[in-house]
Amino acid sequence: MQLDNHILNQFLSPQKSNRLEVETLIKKVINQLLDFLSNASEKPTNPALKYLNTAHFKIPEFSQTHNEIQKNLQELYDLSMNPANPKYIGHMDSMPTLWSVIGDFIASALNNNVLSLEMSPYITQLEYSLTKQFASLFALPETAGGVMLSGGTLSNLQALLVARNTKLNIKNGNIFSLKKEPVIFTSEHSHSSIQKIAMMIGIGTDNVIKIKTDINSKLDICDLEIQINAQIKIGKNPFAIVATAGTTVSGNVDPLIEVSKIAKKFDLWLHIDAIYGGAVIFSEKYKHIIGGVEQADSISFNPQKWMYVAKTCSMVLFKDFSKMVENFRISAPYMKEQNSYINLGEINVQGTKYAEVIKLWLSLQSLGKDGYEKLIDYSFYLAEEFEKEIFKRPYLKMTSKPEMNILCFRGEPQNIKADNFDKWNENLQQYLLKQTDFFLSLPKYKNGLWLRTVLLNPFLTIEHIKTLFLNIDNYEKNQSVNKTTH
Amino acid sequence: MQLDNHILNQFLSPQKSNRLEVETLIKKVINQLLDFLSNASEKPTNPALKYLNTAHFKIPEFSQTHNEIQKNLQELYDLSMNPANPKYIGHMDSMPTLWSVIGDFIASALNNNVLSLEMSPYITQLEYSLTKQFASLFALPETAGGVMLSGGTLSNLQALLVARNTKLNIKNGNIFSLKKEPVIFTSEHSHSSIQKIAMMIGIGTDNVIKIKTDINSKLDICDLEIQINAQIKIGKNPFAIVATAGTTVSGNVDPLIEVSKIAKKFDLWLHIDAIYGGAVIFSEKYKHIIGGVEQADSISFNPQKWMYVAKTCSMVLFKDFSKMVENFRISAPYMKEQNSYINLGEINVQGTKYAEVIKLWLSLQSLGKDGYEKLIDYSFYLAEEFEKEIFKRPYLKMTSKPEMNILCFRGEPQNIKADNFDKWNENLQQYLLKQTDFFLSLPKYKNGLWLRTVLLNPFLTIEHIKTLFLNIDNYEKNQSVNKTTH
Repeated sequence: MQLDNHILNQFLSPQKSNRLEVETLIKKVINQLLDFLSNASEKPTNPALKYLNTAHFKIPEFSQTHNEIQKNLQELYDLSMNPANPKYIGHMDSMPTLWSVIGDFIASALNNNVLSLEMSPYITQLEYSLTKQFASLFALPETAGGVMLSGGTLSNLQALLVARNTKLNIKNGNIFSLKKEPVIFTSEHSHSSIQKIAMMIGIGTDNVIKIKTDINSKLDICDLEIQINAQIKIGKNPFAIVATAGTTVSGNVDPLIEVSKIAKKFDLWLHIDAIYGGAVIFSEKYKHIIGGVEQADSISFNPQKWMYVAKTCSMVLFKDFSKMVENFRISAPYMKEQNSYINLGEINVQGTKYAEVIKLWLSLQSLGKDGYEKLIDYSFYLAEEFEKEIFKRPYLKMTSKPEMNILCFRGEPQNIKADNFDKWNENLQQYLLKQTDFFLSLPKYKNGLWLRTVLLNPFLTIEHIKTLFLNIDNYEKNQSVNKTTH
Repeated sequence: MQLDNHILNQFLSPQKSNRLEVETLIKKVINQLLDFLSNASEKPTNPALKYLNTAHFKIPEFSQTHNEIQKNLQELYDLSMNPANPKYIGHMDSMPTLWSVIGDFIASALNNNVLSLEMSPYITQLEYSLTKQFASLFALPETAGGVMLSGGTLSNLQALLVARNTKLNIKNGNIFSLKKEPVIFTSEHSHSSIQKIAMMIGIGTDNVIKIKTDINSKLDICDLEIQINAQIKIGKNPFAIVATAGTTVSGNVDPLIEVSKIAKKFDLWLHIDAIYGGAVIFSEKYKHIIGGVEQADSISFNPQKWMYVAKTCSMVLFKDFSKMVENFRISAPYMKEQNSYINLGEINVQGTKYAEVIKLWLSLQSLGKDGYEKLIDYSFYLAEEFEKEIFKRPYLKMTSKPEMNILCFRGEPQNIKADNFDKWNENLQQYLLKQTDFFLSLPKYKNGLWLRTVLLNPFLTIEHIKTLFLNIDNYEKNQSVNKTTH
């Protein structure tokens, strides 16, 4: 029995036999993709949604030709979100660095498994080294280290699992065995993954105590202390605080130093969700914004956001790495024990893992710390100019004082009733998308709808921002005219 | 303020300005990678481990040249695990399909976010459709559907979370609020992730009840019923059984139909871990091996293994998709509600997610169901030939009767004391690796060390297997000679 060549040619032969054909195919497909992406500015930021039924994606009985596959790929490109267009400023998703895309090709082709040192001898060491260096960039002590994971929810998950196991002294994870009901504290503007994680780790969403925030979306320290005392009084067991360095909706930072003092006072685990804001560690000028982050027991951070590494690429860092291992590790019997490195699969929530570290490593090499500093500083520059434009317009209001490159604002024109603000802003968002192709997102914040911009794209300029505001003005004027004429 | 061109050129310009340079760079890097991979048969399966210190991976202050980066890449290639070499037969890791590598390049370059329909309009629909089609391939009912996740542990995690929330009626996930302590049942040979997950979801590792297995590593039905009754008797609350279709060490399948009857009798959730073995659904000849899989409440399956899709690529399927949603969903306030599709981020354990479905989709198109059937059948053919070679040698013993393309065996020569079997086999594994470059893994099974082969590589032939056994014979003879002469 033998496999016929047609099937073998769906793989790169390790015996050179189809190298030329493979190279030709790859070049053809990459060419088609570059045709699309190098013109991304001319393509819609968010193409109109087209519903495709299941039959459209039917798994074929037989092998499709390259031409048929490329036809399907063109449809994928044309109907996908297009964050490479500089007018796409609605979410924490940007175009990726070139080397992170190449890195994904390489990681995939090598197909190593970051489960164990045996199955990824080079990549395991690279991950150990880079997470340690990131811990040091966050000014964590020498004892610190971490692991990489596929997305921020998983990083927050691992942090809170270790917090739970350590502080409640239940390495086996049995919540039922506890004497007192455990509770977590976090601000009302922290990421929704904290709720999901509380459900997942057996704490329960009802045991996430939401702390009030001030007018700038920052956790209110007084309320934090009041709530902790209240929970102790009713017999519950506070064990962790989650503070945020860069909230999802408006990019604000909780008062990290004050929070860390409260954590110490009550002997609570302090997890800092620096998923978004952590990237400011690369900027001498702006890193003070997350000052106090080094007080954390754990920090989660996503290079997949403001470091422009392709999704997914996340990490969680622990002040005391070996204590994390002690309180988390479940050994796998089929993995060979190694002397110098613990198999990464045993000390993270995933097990088998993709080599996401490669694209981070390549992006760091191609840009250097210096390049990242310039990218971050440029984002701040755009945000400052954006804020000035908002200030020029009395009918625009912000959710909070921006601290990063995220601005969340909306129109509250005098001639419109407050009840109609949501509708007015929803229409503005659609007007900008449909008439000018600027994509801003439309989150809910304190029961109202707001326009949100995340100024990430390196090809975004002051000219784009000026054009955007001219269009906002046009909309406002037209609405006023409509208002008076009808 | 402006970003200089050197920084902008680390991205593909959406305004065409660097298209040519980018294309040239990509071709150069891919060329270097193909030079390596198209010669993979000539490169060591598992290169000797080289320890590299942290300084070796120091994050550079400034941008590195392409040549410097390519030099580092060469080191990565030379020191990585090399599953493309057909002699790499030690783990469930093979070379990936060509289109899955191209798919990763595309997914990364588009950088959509499978968090929401808005952020991945095409990909979200593709994932809904493909998971539904896989549910149907597993013969689950019309109500079934699933989600894709980054690795099998996460798929098992989501299944057991939904099992927990549904059967214990705690949608908020609060284990402390339960009246009785929950317990899970699984065989002693199920994957170690079940232990890790029990720790994670607050059940506790001590509440995973390990069921005995028969001489072929299959879960013992009598013991299962005994253990369930025993747990009920001591006041615990059984809520789930995890059965395995393709155990990690020896690829065996639990008696799925009998297990499903027990699950029904005691009203327990039945999760079937078909992470490895699920791929047999593509083979008319062999799919009966996992017959009964359609009785599951949930099934986990990894295309990243026997479907040759690059890591990571996993899915979890539920018999009743809308009930899964009801018992799992945590809504994110910043995400726009959509009419026809639930945002995938709300109904899986990850949130932001990479478009892993693209490489699965492209692999399916390039091979068709037909191509997968041939690949699976070829694996079985190799396994049958491999088993014959073992039978020819009275000094070789197997852990269990192989049911898939995984064979776990060891030498137990008559002239060697049983105490020395482990050493003898460990030396054999090293001999094969160092003298012949065949890589077999060396798992522990019932307190002994065994040699394990996973016959995945499509370029693996009968000739390779014959050569391997000649070498095993050589080793055995030399050991006997040494024994008699010393």
